[in-house]
Amino acid sequence: MKIAVVGAGALGLYYGAMLQKAGNDVHFLLRRDYDAIIANGLKVNSADGDFFLPVVHGHRTTGEIGCSDLVIVGLKTSANHRFQELLPPLVGNGTIILTLQNGLGNEEQLATLFGRERVLGGVAYLCSNRGEPGVVNHLGEGRIVLGEFRRGETALAEKIAKLFSSAGIGCRVTEEVGRARWEKLVWNIPFNGLCALMLKSVDVLLGHADTRELILKMMVEVIEGANSQGFLKEIPLSLAEKMVVSSEKLGCYRPSMLIDRLEGRPLELDAMFGAPLLAAGRQGRDMPLVRALHALLQLAEKG
Amino acid sequence: MKIAVVGAGALGLYYGAMLQKAGNDVHFLLRRDYDAIIANGLKVNSADGDFFLPVVHGHRTTGEIGCSDLVIVGLKTSANHRFQELLPPLVGNGTIILTLQNGLGNEEQLATLFGRERVLGGVAYLCSNRGEPGVVNHLGEGRIVLGEFRRGETALAEKIAKLFSSAGIGCRVTEEVGRARWEKLVWNIPFNGLCALMLKSVDVLLGHADTRELILKMMVEVIEGANSQGFLKEIPLSLAEKMVVSSEKLGCYRPSMLIDRLEGRPLELDAMFGAPLLAAGRQGRDMPLVRALHALLQLAEKG
Repeated sequence: MKIAVVGAGALGLYYGAMLQKAGNDVHFLLRRDYDAIIANGLKVNSADGDFFLPVVHGHRTTGEIGCSDLVIVGLKTSANHRFQELLPPLVGNGTIILTLQNGLGNEEQLATLFGRERVLGGVAYLCSNRGEPGVVNHLGEGRIVLGEFRRGETALAEKIAKLFSSAGIGCRVTEEVGRARWEKLVWNIPFNGLCALMLKSVDVLLGHADTRELILKMMVEVIEGANSQGFLKEIPLSLAEKMVVSSEKLGCYRPSMLIDRLEGRPLELDAMFGAPLLAAGRQGRDMPLVRALHALLQLAEKG
Repeated sequence: MKIAVVGAGALGLYYGAMLQKAGNDVHFLLRRDYDAIIANGLKVNSADGDFFLPVVHGHRTTGEIGCSDLVIVGLKTSANHRFQELLPPLVGNGTIILTLQNGLGNEEQLATLFGRERVLGGVAYLCSNRGEPGVVNHLGEGRIVLGEFRRGETALAEKIAKLFSSAGIGCRVTEEVGRARWEKLVWNIPFNGLCALMLKSVDVLLGHADTRELILKMMVEVIEGANSQGFLKEIPLSLAEKMVVSSEKLGCYRPSMLIDRLEGRPLELDAMFGAPLLAAGRQGRDMPLVRALHALLQLAEKG
């Protein structure tokens, strides 16, 4: 299967490398890592065993890659305005587009541009980061919850799930990828947001009783926002406490939005805050603490 | 009248200087400014006209000052644990103690230590800051709302109000100084808190629509917290919008808590956040946005 990876950061490089290792014809759109990967290949330091790909198809443009069977979108959502410039050369009649990005609204944008029938959304639970050019570090996890943009459909999702599974990536199909996205937001909104705002890692926020309490309250707001969306199955409120407890294992983990802020990149505020606030608002439900954090992050981003 | 000023920062120096200029026997407990003031006197750069006091009674200890008719407490509330060490040498039978500090709980602490009948609270609306040692800058305002710790009593407050008025300081007596304190908190909580958290001045917070909205919501929480306290007269919700609009005139004003954080001093979190949250909580009313800001400021203070 010919696979194009657009947005070859820590996530795109890791999943692309796993799929290539399993025998697929993977093509990466590269920027920072282009020279290193073309010259020396791609090294994956993985919790599940390191491996090395000596020959990798790296490209400077998507026109060079051309029409593909599967396009994996791993761009920062702050770059979604580039969909129309980057993706058309990759998309033919039978092309499937899978976004593994954070937050809400990505499937919708892709569906509007390329047709709803070809769009899949995947919620990736992956701890990875980039090393020096040509190196990606996989710290743990990696499973994906996968679903089609069209609620209730699963044929395409099953096909892609098999592809991932046969490459050693845990993959579960859901009929409601929207619900899975909200479930991840229950973690992402407080931890990405507060870590980025306060320039602190996860353990620092959990080590202070009052911010731990704040995280829990924010999680409850997000769960209630999710449950206002009319998914078939509600997210239980008890998920909040469960997630906080399991996050203690993460130690001094620095969520992506904190790293983005430290490295002066745009923050993924629209997908992770703006879109969920709008979606909840459309159902008449406010998330006041989430809204407050969004306001402060917008200000922080201005510098 | 023999007056002791304890806590001779921008507020204590300004009011003490005004009272001395009017002919009172004012004694300052000094630390940073001691040498400069003893050698060269005290210079007041005032919006109402500069003046200079060539001879000022500066002291290193309150024992040196001794029993006074009026003690003006202008300490940072983060230094309230020093009341018992600093104040006893100043307090005799007829001594009146007036706290002009920020937040809640100061009158209570003084009343517990020295007797409720001698304690007055003043809410100072003053824009001032310290210049080089021996210089205090009065940027504007200065009026005080004054009341006795004992609700309903006004005789002592009237006496001290006359003292201030005859020194050119606008002074109004209230039977409920607690209500005046809350009214000032409506401004102090969002502006001191958010400016200190974000390291931004007032105009930056007001210039961003979403933080302006957050300020308004936080003000409404504080007003409702105040109105849960059972004061004779409620604070109208419309005060929030009024305060936000009038704050636009402040431009790039930096509230005291921001300056405290920038200069590495403890933040006045107990008086300005902890005590109001407790007081509202005792009436069964939470202030969730205020509580969130308190949590984040505690974390920020840890550095």
